[in-house]
Amino acid sequence: MSPLVITAGEPAGIGPDLILQLAAEGHEVARPWLAVGDPALFRQRAARLGLAVEVVSLADGETPVMAPGRLSVWPVALRSACQPGRLATANADYVLESLDLAIAACREGRASAMVTAPLHKGVIIEAGHAGFTGHTEYLRDACGVDDVVMMLATDDALHARSPSWQGSPGLRVALATTHLPLREVADAITPASLGRVLRILDHDLRHDFGIARPRIAVCGLNPHAGEDGHLGREELEVIAPTLDALRGEGLILDGPLPADTLFTPRHLADVDAVLAMYHDQGLAVLKYAGFGRGANLTLGLPIVRTSVDHGTALDLAASGRADAGSLAVALNLAAEMAAARAASA
Amino acid sequence: MSPLVITAGEPAGIGPDLILQLAAEGHEVARPWLAVGDPALFRQRAARLGLAVEVVSLADGETPVMAPGRLSVWPVALRSACQPGRLATANADYVLESLDLAIAACREGRASAMVTAPLHKGVIIEAGHAGFTGHTEYLRDACGVDDVVMMLATDDALHARSPSWQGSPGLRVALATTHLPLREVADAITPASLGRVLRILDHDLRHDFGIARPRIAVCGLNPHAGEDGHLGREELEVIAPTLDALRGEGLILDGPLPADTLFTPRHLADVDAVLAMYHDQGLAVLKYAGFGRGANLTLGLPIVRTSVDHGTALDLAASGRADAGSLAVALNLAAEMAAARAASA
Repeated sequence: MSPLVITAGEPAGIGPDLILQLAAEGHEVARPWLAVGDPALFRQRAARLGLAVEVVSLADGETPVMAPGRLSVWPVALRSACQPGRLATANADYVLESLDLAIAACREGRASAMVTAPLHKGVIIEAGHAGFTGHTEYLRDACGVDDVVMMLATDDALHARSPSWQGSPGLRVALATTHLPLREVADAITPASLGRVLRILDHDLRHDFGIARPRIAVCGLNPHAGEDGHLGREELEVIAPTLDALRGEGLILDGPLPADTLFTPRHLADVDAVLAMYHDQGLAVLKYAGFGRGANLTLGLPIVRTSVDHGTALDLAASGRADAGSLAVALNLAAEMAAARAASA
Repeated sequence: MSPLVITAGEPAGIGPDLILQLAAEGHEVARPWLAVGDPALFRQRAARLGLAVEVVSLADGETPVMAPGRLSVWPVALRSACQPGRLATANADYVLESLDLAIAACREGRASAMVTAPLHKGVIIEAGHAGFTGHTEYLRDACGVDDVVMMLATDDALHARSPSWQGSPGLRVALATTHLPLREVADAITPASLGRVLRILDHDLRHDFGIARPRIAVCGLNPHAGEDGHLGREELEVIAPTLDALRGEGLILDGPLPADTLFTPRHLADVDAVLAMYHDQGLAVLKYAGFGRGANLTLGLPIVRTSVDHGTALDLAASGRADAGSLAVALNLAAEMAAARAASA
């Protein structure tokens, strides 16, 4: 069973800390896991954190041995010494090399999924990679696909068939648009873009989540989903006709529904994922529900990729105050998705 | 102590049902309460619902006697017989007369607050009141003020000083814009509009919630609150300068903050209310958190007004399946606000 691989991301941030925390406690998932990064960096950071973790460099093809206090690493060398909290452009290529190594391992079957700790966009751009816009687009281009979909999931969504409401509900929320200024959102939602996103979401819920007939609830764009055209016409002119066409292809879709009634128990009960039209419509409620136990994932790739849902938190690096909750969820989720994908292959 | 008054709203909807449910169970709040509506309608609906409720018409100046199974009513006569679930334009004037009576009672001190059950906008417009756009604007005009602010609160927010996270968290969310198509939102947020909303919110948190130094968390407009201008410039050019100016007036404001990190325990811990820039940014999370136990309220009026946060639900009228949870919260909230306002006067 090929391992899960975690890229440590920005070395001056909390990525190495979080990985060491999981290694120290012997965090268990259904597959062995290892990290990609500089073994010396992990050793230094463990010493700063007072964590007794043995860092073991693995050779090609070696399987990580899982045990509390042991971290297996596929080594990539830092370009420059790393001070916690201090960004260094020299290490941008170290971050990208780590990513390339993990992507290649997943594509070649030597790893079954990749989990990414946070990187720092700014320092990578400053280092000369002007077009760099983040993990998601980098993975998309490296994998040679045109479209990917961003989805966030809370911890509880992992083991439930549906994100049903049970005290602490699980939720899966995908986004039709991601990092756009609000005033550009309405024009970015087209029949073509919405169709691409929903087909990817439906496909990956089947193959990566093992849901035979996924039911997707779709938010409207406007308040009250436009209230029959009184509060905006995009539901009538774009969203509803697109959903109808996709239902003709066999997708099971509810909506467009008002976002402020959709995220309630009655509507979520039989729903496998929600598609929000834009960032804050979906992620405010997801992060409220997730309470620090959410993970980000990229659908539409030929590989399984999950991620923490937070940034590098430079000020917390080496402090011992970083919370590994999201990385643990991302790792659990990657293991589940890798198993579902293997079963559906 | 002057009573709280509930307007029964659309007679063919669930308003009368909800009021009868609270009367049947003897729902208690810190003040006596009564309803405005047609006594015969209440009696007929109680019979349909199988609720043993004695309906008592009060004369002017009489104080309602509170007891389980007893409903006191300030009578207003239906214009036309009412069939549950069947709208009749003839009764639009009954709905408006009920509102006028409650507004006058609050303004003249014969009632201490008003709570509104849902009305049906469409039937009132169809009856010839072309400019009618809802309770909120009607109250604003009837009270002769220029600006009001819509806020929603969950049940738990009532008794907590702050909507802190405690398993089932309480939240208060006010809106900078309300029922606008999404593509019009960005241009509707101006220094003037934002200043008016925040001054009203701050004032009413002091006077109607008894919070001496209210702390308000303000969302950004764009994802990640614009990410230093990369995802929209409204935070830099409109929101942040406006908040700075208002801080100069003594308001205690956090933000602009990303909506998807603001609604998390760490940020909400010391916050008395959140200001969202638009409908779905704030209300999706509020209604998720409130789980059917939220109420709507109108700030900026010379009277206290709260409301259910749902519609007329014509299909549920007389079915016995309507949930009085939101009306109970609205009534509790009205009682608390009336007490706070009396104490601050």
